[in-house]
Amino acid sequence: MSEPVVLKLGGSVVTEKSTPETIAHDQLETLAADVAAFDGSLVVIHGGGSFGHHHASAHGVSRTEGTRDAAAVRAVTGAMRELNDAVVGALAAAGTPAVPVHPFSVASRDDEGTLSLPTGAVAGMLTAGFVPVLHGDLVVHAGEGATVLSGDELVTELARRLDAARVGVCSGVPGVLDEAGDVVERIDSYEEVAAALGGSDATDVTGGMASKVRELLALSAPAYVFDADGVGPFLAGESPGTRIN
Amino acid sequence: MSEPVVLKLGGSVVTEKSTPETIAHDQLETLAADVAAFDGSLVVIHGGGSFGHHHASAHGVSRTEGTRDAAAVRAVTGAMRELNDAVVGALAAAGTPAVPVHPFSVASRDDEGTLSLPTGAVAGMLTAGFVPVLHGDLVVHAGEGATVLSGDELVTELARRLDAARVGVCSGVPGVLDEAGDVVERIDSYEEVAAALGGSDATDVTGGMASKVRELLALSAPAYVFDADGVGPFLAGESPGTRIN
Repeated sequence: MSEPVVLKLGGSVVTEKSTPETIAHDQLETLAADVAAFDGSLVVIHGGGSFGHHHASAHGVSRTEGTRDAAAVRAVTGAMRELNDAVVGALAAAGTPAVPVHPFSVASRDDEGTLSLPTGAVAGMLTAGFVPVLHGDLVVHAGEGATVLSGDELVTELARRLDAARVGVCSGVPGVLDEAGDVVERIDSYEEVAAALGGSDATDVTGGMASKVRELLALSAPAYVFDADGVGPFLAGESPGTRIN
Repeated sequence: MSEPVVLKLGGSVVTEKSTPETIAHDQLETLAADVAAFDGSLVVIHGGGSFGHHHASAHGVSRTEGTRDAAAVRAVTGAMRELNDAVVGALAAAGTPAVPVHPFSVASRDDEGTLSLPTGAVAGMLTAGFVPVLHGDLVVHAGEGATVLSGDELVTELARRLDAARVGVCSGVPGVLDEAGDVVERIDSYEEVAAALGGSDATDVTGGMASKVRELLALSAPAYVFDADGVGPFLAGESPGTRIN
């Protein structure tokens, strides 16, 4: 397996985030064409958008507050699987050998919240020439039942464990923005952007740009933060949006 | 986590095996009531029946012959997930805190076909009080693409890795049958039943009773082979059908 590229498609990109359980079909189709043009080892991860967040909020589940209600677990994981079907289906229709991977089946957290994510299956898929498509999900969490596992956590964990060549995070904004609203070209430490980023977005149970940047800074691979227009350039080896590391 | 009970519901029990993609709803409802009456740590595994076998045969996939066709992988894993939804749904409707686990997301085989099945997620689900429900599936297989992962392989692998207290395998027959067609009460070595069992059933890509018995004999936990009428007694601690070990 050559070192893969890890691409995150944010929940706000693949869904209409303001309307519960609505897929952004046109945008997804455009993104799928960009992905299909890439020839190499690739892992795709997508967020929950209006599927996961809606159900997670309804059941009071976050990254630290869990649920022991199996019905809640089935509702959230089921909604995320439905969104994953749409993403996998769009990628497949465009010609990408996409196959689904459901993180609730494989991940776990210990009682300190530390994530364990065995990657034998994903690594095997890459070697076989498949493009595994993971998604934000729930995860069993010692002492908590099940908590939220964000797409961003999957990005950093997979990038680290699979020794990713490059990491791309596509969200609704063209990059990390400074206090004037302009895209920051490069970030090498959190202090450079702390004032502009502030805390996490209250409508996003998995944290906003601040936590994304912190987690990407901890990687050794170069990471890029861009919007939907950046996916093609990123996969072509260019440097859209903000470069981190 | 206390030592769990591992229960396999054969594909021929939860589906109408002779008709493609048909769930045996009435039987499933009866089994779900038996499972709901059990109070303890439990893992449920179900076979593919008329869902998995149909697609696996259509794509020429077996435990040793793989596919590199992502569309075939999506078709087989998708059909098995649909069956899993039905089983999880029936168990949940009867009051069991069932949650789905999709083996393709977590398992892998090396180039000698040896299965690797990380069990952190399943163990965490048991600790949280959930009943994980796994299913026969595909699995990435080094050098082969994806091959069949049978429910029976999952039974033995999980029983071993989770240190199962007891193992129950529910199939279409009331136990292991001798050459006269009577249920063998107990088996401690394969030689005792070799003449009666012969080879695997040609209509079953995952092997028939012969391979079941061989794999169960390799466990340290006592295993029972019974039909649908045995599920209630087995979960009540009785010894229906044939005892192995």
